[in-house]
Amino acid sequence: MKIAVAQINSIIGDLENNKNKILNYYNKGVEQGADLVVFPELALIGYPPLDLVEKKEFRERAAAIHQEIALAAGKTGLLFGSITDSNEKVGTNIYNSAILCHDGKIQFIQNKSLIPNYDVFDEVRYFEPSKLTNVYKFNGEVLGISVCEDIWNDEDYWNNRRYLEDPVKNQIEMGATLLINISASPFSVGKRELKRKMLSVLTKGNNIPLVYASYVAAQTELIFDGASMCFNNSGDLVKLGNAYEEDFFIFDTDEKYNTINKAENCFEEEVLSALIFGVKDYCNKLNFKKVLVGLSGGMDSAMVTYIAVKALGKENVHTVLMPSKYSSKGSIDDSIALVNNLDISHNVISIEPVFDNLTAQLADAFNHLPEDITEENLQARIRGIYLMALSNKHKYLLLSTGNKSEMATGYSTMYGDMCGGLAVIADVYKSDIYRLAGFINKEEKIIPQEIIDKAPSAELRPNQTDQDSLPPYDLLDRILKMYLEQNKEYNEISKVIGDAPLVNRVLRLVDINEFKRKQSAPVLRVSSKAFGYGRRYPIVQGWRK
Amino acid sequence: MKIAVAQINSIIGDLENNKNKILNYYNKGVEQGADLVVFPELALIGYPPLDLVEKKEFRERAAAIHQEIALAAGKTGLLFGSITDSNEKVGTNIYNSAILCHDGKIQFIQNKSLIPNYDVFDEVRYFEPSKLTNVYKFNGEVLGISVCEDIWNDEDYWNNRRYLEDPVKNQIEMGATLLINISASPFSVGKRELKRKMLSVLTKGNNIPLVYASYVAAQTELIFDGASMCFNNSGDLVKLGNAYEEDFFIFDTDEKYNTINKAENCFEEEVLSALIFGVKDYCNKLNFKKVLVGLSGGMDSAMVTYIAVKALGKENVHTVLMPSKYSSKGSIDDSIALVNNLDISHNVISIEPVFDNLTAQLADAFNHLPEDITEENLQARIRGIYLMALSNKHKYLLLSTGNKSEMATGYSTMYGDMCGGLAVIADVYKSDIYRLAGFINKEEKIIPQEIIDKAPSAELRPNQTDQDSLPPYDLLDRILKMYLEQNKEYNEISKVIGDAPLVNRVLRLVDINEFKRKQSAPVLRVSSKAFGYGRRYPIVQGWRK
Repeated sequence: MKIAVAQINSIIGDLENNKNKILNYYNKGVEQGADLVVFPELALIGYPPLDLVEKKEFRERAAAIHQEIALAAGKTGLLFGSITDSNEKVGTNIYNSAILCHDGKIQFIQNKSLIPNYDVFDEVRYFEPSKLTNVYKFNGEVLGISVCEDIWNDEDYWNNRRYLEDPVKNQIEMGATLLINISASPFSVGKRELKRKMLSVLTKGNNIPLVYASYVAAQTELIFDGASMCFNNSGDLVKLGNAYEEDFFIFDTDEKYNTINKAENCFEEEVLSALIFGVKDYCNKLNFKKVLVGLSGGMDSAMVTYIAVKALGKENVHTVLMPSKYSSKGSIDDSIALVNNLDISHNVISIEPVFDNLTAQLADAFNHLPEDITEENLQARIRGIYLMALSNKHKYLLLSTGNKSEMATGYSTMYGDMCGGLAVIADVYKSDIYRLAGFINKEEKIIPQEIIDKAPSAELRPNQTDQDSLPPYDLLDRILKMYLEQNKEYNEISKVIGDAPLVNRVLRLVDINEFKRKQSAPVLRVSSKAFGYGRRYPIVQGWRK
Repeated sequence: MKIAVAQINSIIGDLENNKNKILNYYNKGVEQGADLVVFPELALIGYPPLDLVEKKEFRERAAAIHQEIALAAGKTGLLFGSITDSNEKVGTNIYNSAILCHDGKIQFIQNKSLIPNYDVFDEVRYFEPSKLTNVYKFNGEVLGISVCEDIWNDEDYWNNRRYLEDPVKNQIEMGATLLINISASPFSVGKRELKRKMLSVLTKGNNIPLVYASYVAAQTELIFDGASMCFNNSGDLVKLGNAYEEDFFIFDTDEKYNTINKAENCFEEEVLSALIFGVKDYCNKLNFKKVLVGLSGGMDSAMVTYIAVKALGKENVHTVLMPSKYSSKGSIDDSIALVNNLDISHNVISIEPVFDNLTAQLADAFNHLPEDITEENLQARIRGIYLMALSNKHKYLLLSTGNKSEMATGYSTMYGDMCGGLAVIADVYKSDIYRLAGFINKEEKIIPQEIIDKAPSAELRPNQTDQDSLPPYDLLDRILKMYLEQNKEYNEISKVIGDAPLVNRVLRLVDINEFKRKQSAPVLRVSSKAFGYGRRYPIVQGWRK
């Protein structure tokens, strides 16, 4: 059987656009002699549609389009993801469905059985679990069709399972000869290799081939990396779709393919590719042509600028240098060197006159109290005003440049350096940003060595460095990773680090700065636990006081 | 049987504090001769604890405290809400439990059966549903103990049910003679009356009394209004706890009480009380003594200032007037009149010099393009900088003043008037703010009549009024209520309003401004659908382009 995998980038809620994309790729599949063309989970709807699915008119429009798509389907099957009504009087009344059309009709629907509701997934809010699992005979094969999470509960692979049922196992027991999983699974580092291994165990153990059709898109925070996979019945990965872009390919179950042994590239390459795609697709979908970055002379703004140039092209990235009296000459020179290396435009606008003016205006209301964090924040906020003014005037999307270590500890100013429409590297620890820089510079010296070598500093007071207030980043990031990503707590982390007061201080910094993160720009997610939608922590809490 | 209801305000995660509160109220119940002292849902943990419950050390500490509480319990029963481990290998492994102790031991645990996962509820993320419903014989009664949502699925009351099971019905069938529901149910206008009616139908229909013990707290966005209720077996509400404060009272099932016919006050009174409590409890829990409000001369900032004074006292509310060249003399006079009426402190700091300085600095980078929205936003952002500077310098919590109509349509400036730690009235439509003002002024002329009478204006350009860009607020708010709270869509709303292009424009404004709301301060929730945690809408979507 020849199965075409159409790994498409749907726009959430844009049913007409997504329908046309589905029909175009279907026709391509027909032309190339496919028996079946497979699209990802919720291909017609976009993922995640969130509260959009609660709108009756939206669901009715989707249902009408299902009929249009079915009418366009001929002998070649067309399998796509969408939402359908359950017509029950209890619950949400909506299913997350795989819809199979051929010969002008919807012939078979398999609803999703396992409804994920952890980290970035909130599907129980929207979808009822399928009450039935079935198989469908088509062109001599018995298809076991499932939706995303349905394939993530293999008893042979997982020690701790989220669900009691295993719908894919049921389909195999019902005589399935070919598994098809339509998916929308957000990227995080290491997950593609995990998928490859998990799906290899499944296909090998059950002696059955699998088509795993992935969604590719950046949907604000979430990056869906594509990389659809096909396995033969020996558990070998034999087809791998492109990552971070639309793709279309044919998998013939009768053909012999070479085995692909690795699905994922190194940390640096994957993270950079994911972030570049995240910026590009967000700008495309919001129709922003150009972006703006404030250059401090430090590593973070250099990295964001590099990513922006790779995403949008050098002619679409503008930068601003905003020195103060605390800015070192090095900071300005290093920024100019970066601008030259990347061949992009820039402005230099001092914040000093505005700072002096502001502090004069506020002097009485300050009651002549001594300088403190207020004056540091003022500088960051003047820069925020400059950046937003240029963004408004020239229709740039402002990219914010905070890293994960900073976001975690609150080493950032609300309405200052936190300004922006997208937080590009806020899921990458500071120490990992250096790894990325090293990786970039291996091919071409783009990030000036001075930026890599200097001690990180906010330059908001004389001779300030980040390490005046924070532990060294390597140590800090080890603590943060355990706390944020491995869900460890104080005692466990202290045992590993051996410095309990420091661990307590860091964890407390993370907890008390939840209010800042509440107001941050959306964070592109590349780790298994990012700030944003997948992490929900109370702003007011007394667990750690 | 004498049941003491201890309607307490727990701090999320502050297990020691919450334990002491539980033990103190328990002792009070013992002293007053109660047979059983009942605390709300998750009384030991605080509600909603969010990802805190995913921490093993947190759960272990809670489990240890359960034993301390049990040891302190004598003949008098102590029923409180907490989390317990399910010890299963599948799922989250955590229950949301009602724990009954007496005679030094945990005697009975009833886990929550119905796990809400809609609007502001995400409980499926954390809690497994109970596998068993049971009753417990105590002091001659058969107790049917349930947790919050468990009592919200009565087939006799609801047409569309969320769940198939009805655990409370099961308990009645098992011979329960007294129902006890421990609850943490966030306030919205009308909900308390709905509860009274629903619980009256239940108790009357089944000829059984009920103790409904409520949580009282403001947890950032969510306001839990207390108002615990007791019903006799004729369906009469006979005991009603205080709203918006801790309370303790005894309900004796053998005693005759007068019937209470109304549980909820008028719209204006409830909304004002809820918001006052919301501000007060947020400041208390974050240890902010004083708040700051920027006074524009308009209705919104006047309303927020009034609420702040009621919440914290006049000596703890500071205001700033920040006129520009577009500010009318009236705006300043009206603000001063308000300040005098409320007897609070203020500063006046012009934004003109800073505005002139900023535009001069930016002139080159603006390429001498004509004035546009940029300059309007600049003014709002200078005010934001002033407010944040005073907030930093004097440790004030800045209250933001946007209303729901503004938040909906994006008629606000990010990092400008949206600055603040708490959005006090962002769940109240502009037209409803006028209702509140009328209500306040009935007793005492506090809000100057000029503020009520003038046309709303942002005063960011000459002779600007809100109605230059928005439809009249009465009409706008009708559209917004249908769209946001009744979940209606374009066609349905257009039919009611009769102006399809206007409806389309308003709905589009709401949709495209999701990116602004992503970065807003937490919004105190008083409606059934507020911006914030309970509403999840994609920033990037093509449903409405």
